[in-house]
Amino acid sequence: MDDAGASLAAQMSAMGRGAREAAAVLRLGDAATRTRALTAMAAAIRADAADILAANARDVAAAKASGMASAMVDRLLLDEARVEAMAKGVETVAAIRDPLGAELDRWDRPNGLDIARIRTPIGVIGIIYESRPNVTADAAALCLRAGNAVILRGGSECLASNLAIHAAVAKGLSAAGLPETCVQIVRTADRAAVGLMLTGLEGAIDLLIPRGGKGLVARVREEARGVAVLGHLEGLVHVFLHASADLEKATAIAVNAKLRRVSVCGAAETLLVDSADAQRLLPPVAQALRDAGCELRGDARARALVPGMADATEEDWRTEYLAPILSVAVVDGVDGAAAHIAKYGSAHTDAIVAEDGAAAERFAALVDSAIVLINASTQFADGGEFGFGAEIGIATDRLHARGPVGAEQLTTYKYVVRGTGQTRP
Amino acid sequence: MDDAGASLAAQMSAMGRGAREAAAVLRLGDAATRTRALTAMAAAIRADAADILAANARDVAAAKASGMASAMVDRLLLDEARVEAMAKGVETVAAIRDPLGAELDRWDRPNGLDIARIRTPIGVIGIIYESRPNVTADAAALCLRAGNAVILRGGSECLASNLAIHAAVAKGLSAAGLPETCVQIVRTADRAAVGLMLTGLEGAIDLLIPRGGKGLVARVREEARGVAVLGHLEGLVHVFLHASADLEKATAIAVNAKLRRVSVCGAAETLLVDSADAQRLLPPVAQALRDAGCELRGDARARALVPGMADATEEDWRTEYLAPILSVAVVDGVDGAAAHIAKYGSAHTDAIVAEDGAAAERFAALVDSAIVLINASTQFADGGEFGFGAEIGIATDRLHARGPVGAEQLTTYKYVVRGTGQTRP
Repeated sequence: MDDAGASLAAQMSAMGRGAREAAAVLRLGDAATRTRALTAMAAAIRADAADILAANARDVAAAKASGMASAMVDRLLLDEARVEAMAKGVETVAAIRDPLGAELDRWDRPNGLDIARIRTPIGVIGIIYESRPNVTADAAALCLRAGNAVILRGGSECLASNLAIHAAVAKGLSAAGLPETCVQIVRTADRAAVGLMLTGLEGAIDLLIPRGGKGLVARVREEARGVAVLGHLEGLVHVFLHASADLEKATAIAVNAKLRRVSVCGAAETLLVDSADAQRLLPPVAQALRDAGCELRGDARARALVPGMADATEEDWRTEYLAPILSVAVVDGVDGAAAHIAKYGSAHTDAIVAEDGAAAERFAALVDSAIVLINASTQFADGGEFGFGAEIGIATDRLHARGPVGAEQLTTYKYVVRGTGQTRP
Repeated sequence: MDDAGASLAAQMSAMGRGAREAAAVLRLGDAATRTRALTAMAAAIRADAADILAANARDVAAAKASGMASAMVDRLLLDEARVEAMAKGVETVAAIRDPLGAELDRWDRPNGLDIARIRTPIGVIGIIYESRPNVTADAAALCLRAGNAVILRGGSECLASNLAIHAAVAKGLSAAGLPETCVQIVRTADRAAVGLMLTGLEGAIDLLIPRGGKGLVARVREEARGVAVLGHLEGLVHVFLHASADLEKATAIAVNAKLRRVSVCGAAETLLVDSADAQRLLPPVAQALRDAGCELRGDARARALVPGMADATEEDWRTEYLAPILSVAVVDGVDGAAAHIAKYGSAHTDAIVAEDGAAAERFAALVDSAIVLINASTQFADGGEFGFGAEIGIATDRLHARGPVGAEQLTTYKYVVRGTGQTRP
């Protein structure tokens, strides 16, 4: 390791120790203090808007100079409305019910032991993310609401923006008398910092959350060593139109699921249509999608019903387009739809449109995704829409938490067992 | 890879695929079928007792011939009572409430969406364990109760016993019409099989659970690649006698926590005594422990009160003896006890003995262990004692599940969102 590497390692170790100390303070702190810090953070973000925008302008200029694609530049870009939305997001988290201390379960044993399961913080969370600078504020707010210390490592392309937002976050912590090490940010673009986080910083990090593209999430999952990872993989999202579907609902949901925003993980990527009534459903829905600017790629049965569709390849069924492109397959009933989803889906979010309640419930049972929607758009796959205030992302792993990860999903629990002197025979 | 290696890899891949298929069947199966299989398993274990004991005799003979220590041989050894206990254990799991399908939460959103959180199986679990052959039956039963397929890999020293128990388990599955791949066992002592499981068998394994010694658990945690691990680390368990402790309860709890069984993870390893009343508490408790055959190693303050104690080294505070040895320290109040536990404990199980309720509750808040007991023996750290029927072990990681891992802890959840055609604005 060279001098710079040793110095970075020492800095990251110190962050780990600082985070652990902060976690110990937070674990014993009260909800009112956490709320006060969150409210002060939102105020500081508003007060610092000019600084945040100036820092962001530097990031954007550098990104443009480096030849970054304009869609990517747009993800970096902040304006007054986006800064205000960030402050509002933090206020929403300040307003949700504090998850800590809740009694999740409680029962008595025949020997008189009283067992309570109590919600507690996880401890120290490491978040590795890309692009959108609002993640800095969202992640800080959610971790704090759940009583966790957090170490943030954002993308190098918005380091200046992230540091400016973090400065406001730190003011909020300080206003509430909380240690600034409750929310720390890696202040260098050196990718070696990520490597150090993947080792858990000598046991300081309890959970790593990658948020970003497939490459980032895959790297964190594969390279994390001895530290748990909560993965947010792609959303290969399906909408299935059952033979019993109402055409108006089917059309509205398919168009909204695909096109409301094409770049979110809850955007539909494949439309499945029941062969039992595809002739009624597919042509008008396809027309509505095309009218709204969507390109369609179909299997043979879909193309027989909708002229001019491109041929969907095997690759199409596995592709998260994040673009106004939709693959379309005709399948045989609920079981055919579920089989397609099991083969190609990412267990993120899938929807059925059906008036037949039994068919809808069978779909909900067969499809093993974090979120299954009946007669609603897949774009509701979002922590805010679930009432969580905000989210770190949608978890697609099967352990700990599935679906939107809000403050409650960033907690764990412990048992408190109260006795009167019991010993075990 | 040589031919044998390639053949093992192919076998393990096939097990992974078989498990995934079984998981799909189990996910849609009903509780009654799972219960039928469990009841039939218990019956088959009883019916096969002679075969199981004969196989076990071969393992024990081989272990003795290899010069294995007699305490270790005892862990392998089955007799009629232990086989009956195994069958009873499976029946207990058959009798507990089936965890699947339970509605964990349900709420409406202002837009009319009805969001339900439903308990579902994790999928495929890999369990890597050592020694005690009863784990084969316990793990199979708990995984099945929770609707998971499982791949078992027991210690090579009891392979014959494990295969015989597995044969009975398979009969139970078959009697209920469930695929035999619901519970599979690695049929070779080749350690390369563990290495393959640590890679997740091409995504087939959703969760790895190591159950055994520190070395095994550490290896699984460090070497698992892209697959989640639920860790069961050591129990560095403390009993703290607060100044307000009732002497009779303190004595009974300290002796029981240390000596009821010294080899379990819930056995106490360190006794902490409040300096505010150590003179009243420590000498009689130490005497009772010595009378029961326990060796004591103390810090300076403890040795001043109890003559003839060995000097506890720094290493002692970090040692899980699993033997009739106890380290003893005098600490200053609840905060001193909590600080000692934070520094040396393993966040597994810790107890306070106190008549002062406020002190006890402060201890419960300060000590961040999976199980905190007030006025009860740490030997209650056990899934059976919690009412879980049985357990795979006590989880010491912070994610997904903490404390005893029973059937409920082997589940995850999904959201079913019911709408009436909602699209997202």
